Amino acid sequence: MHVTFLGTSGAVPTTMRNPSAVMVRREGERFLFDAGEGTQRQMMRFSTGFAVSHVFVSHLHGDHVLGLPGLIQTWDFNDREEPVAIHTPAGTRRRIRDLITVTGNEPSFPVRVNEVSPGDVALDGGEFEVRAFETDHRTTSVGYAIVEDDRKGRFDREKAQQELGIEPGPKYSKLHNGESVELDDGTVVQPEQVVGPPRPGRRVVYTGDTCPTEGVVEAAEDADLLIHDATFAEDRRERAGQTGHATAKQAAEIANRAGAKRLALTHVSTRYAGQSGRLEKEACEVFDGEAFLPDDGDELDVPFPDTAGD
Amino acid sequence: MHVTFLGTSGAVPTTMRNPSAVMVRREGERFLFDAGEGTQRQMMRFSTGFAVSHVFVSHLHGDHVLGLPGLIQTWDFNDREEPVAIHTPAGTRRRIRDLITVTGNEPSFPVRVNEVSPGDVALDGGEFEVRAFETDHRTTSVGYAIVEDDRKGRFDREKAQQELGIEPGPKYSKLHNGESVELDDGTVVQPEQVVGPPRPGRRVVYTGDTCPTEGVVEAAEDADLLIHDATFAEDRRERAGQTGHATAKQAAEIANRAGAKRLALTHVSTRYAGQSGRLEKEACEVFDGEAFLPDDGDELDVPFPDTAGD
Repeated sequence: MHVTFLGTSGAVPTTMRNPSAVMVRREGERFLFDAGEGTQRQMMRFSTGFAVSHVFVSHLHGDHVLGLPGLIQTWDFNDREEPVAIHTPAGTRRRIRDLITVTGNEPSFPVRVNEVSPGDVALDGGEFEVRAFETDHRTTSVGYAIVEDDRKGRFDREKAQQELGIEPGPKYSKLHNGESVELDDGTVVQPEQVVGPPRPGRRVVYTGDTCPTEGVVEAAEDADLLIHDATFAEDRRERAGQTGHATAKQAAEIANRAGAKRLALTHVSTRYAGQSGRLEKEACEVFDGEAFLPDDGDELDVPFPDTAGD
Repeated sequence: MHVTFLGTSGAVPTTMRNPSAVMVRREGERFLFDAGEGTQRQMMRFSTGFAVSHVFVSHLHGDHVLGLPGLIQTWDFNDREEPVAIHTPAGTRRRIRDLITVTGNEPSFPVRVNEVSPGDVALDGGEFEVRAFETDHRTTSVGYAIVEDDRKGRFDREKAQQELGIEPGPKYSKLHNGESVELDDGTVVQPEQVVGPPRPGRRVVYTGDTCPTEGVVEAAEDADLLIHDATFAEDRRERAGQTGHATAKQAAEIANRAGAKRLALTHVSTRYAGQSGRLEKEACEVFDGEAFLPDDGDELDVPFPDTAGD
């Protein structure tokens, strides 16, 4: 998976940071998490491609959704025909519809609006799911976790051929798929003899705006990447609680409890403009993994856990 | 007056051009003409200041108004208390209200929505007016002209003192204000003897999206600056007509007929990305004055006509 941070500002943008949006690309598909004002130009600027199939809205505050109508209008101008799905918290379908038609524009391609509640599978992608989970932002909100299925264990080709004397061919796939096979001499080989344990898929978690909360700890268990609200530093912990946000340190504590490997801090308040290193430092001092505060346009690859060190 | 081009793209933005918005500053007041998506960040990027008192909306297409809700939300976050007036074509008040509250945000400062029809004075500023005029964009639309009152003629201090023997004092203001004065020796001096003819104020005209139309010719009579739709080049004249836009050449023809001094081309279609010189050339070949196609962030001063050569 490939992640591009399109907008990393808090509610008010700056010259350096656009309002919230994160693009995730996975095997040719593009998923957009939130779409603050100006997201379409960020997509152009950072060359992420435009063919988004699913938009996941964390909540309906302006800095997370005001880029939607313009993006949809541009798709329309570009003669888009493919449907797009907008996933949004339960009870907000009507407001999403109002938003995307607010200037009287009815898109000529299908826009499906899918309401989700914490625990719902927003998208079943076959070998992965995007699951909604509970967040706490003092308004109707959810976070989203992209969770890949486990992959088959590694097939030990050398052992199969040289030790057990199985010739390459259909028997290899059978074994890899978990079936036993009988050799010409009557020997039965069990898949466990040549196939390693299942290898975990990847997990990328986007909280949207939230206070520190158990829902995130559960959703981000062993996550390869946790993208967490870090609107404030510890000096504003009280303010963070009042406004439904987290401090960088709180985000790090949540990431530790979840056992996440990497933590991306985002939704930075304008008060830390030019001193975002302070938030990063605060998180790094606490977090056992790798914490960082991306700039707009920063990208990263999320490798499979078992190849991360390759 | 000082003009900053905040957004010069057509309906679809590019990496270089934001959707429509023009900022005009006049004696400490800031007027915003249209506010496409991303306008607030353009204001930050180009340091125009944020204290806009009046927004003039040409029409309700997304690329001209989708920056409004975010801008108003940011004013709200910044604890704005001063009212803002949004001038908008007759019949669109409800849609403006829906737009600025689309994410459920009710601004805590007063937002006055003023519907205007062609011929209306949208804003009476005392020594200037902003007048709405007729445009033709295949939808409810208006253009806006900032028209300053004539200023008093120049007072010929040298003649008054040395030739007519009037001592500096209250008699000077009387004469400058158009009253005759009687000197100690009984001579009566008429104001015409020492005061030149009234000097014209400035006129800056913003069309928004429009086909070539008589309304613009009238509104832009002797304009110091005409900012005109130039979505297409002549190769797309038919397409321009169908979509309610003008070509660069058509804009130049209108500017000639109006006797405008300068012509700014704007609302450039993505199809001319990287070749905007072509539009500029097309207009310059026809226009008797100075035609140019601004980039986002370009600024210019509009001096008084009688000091333009100083």
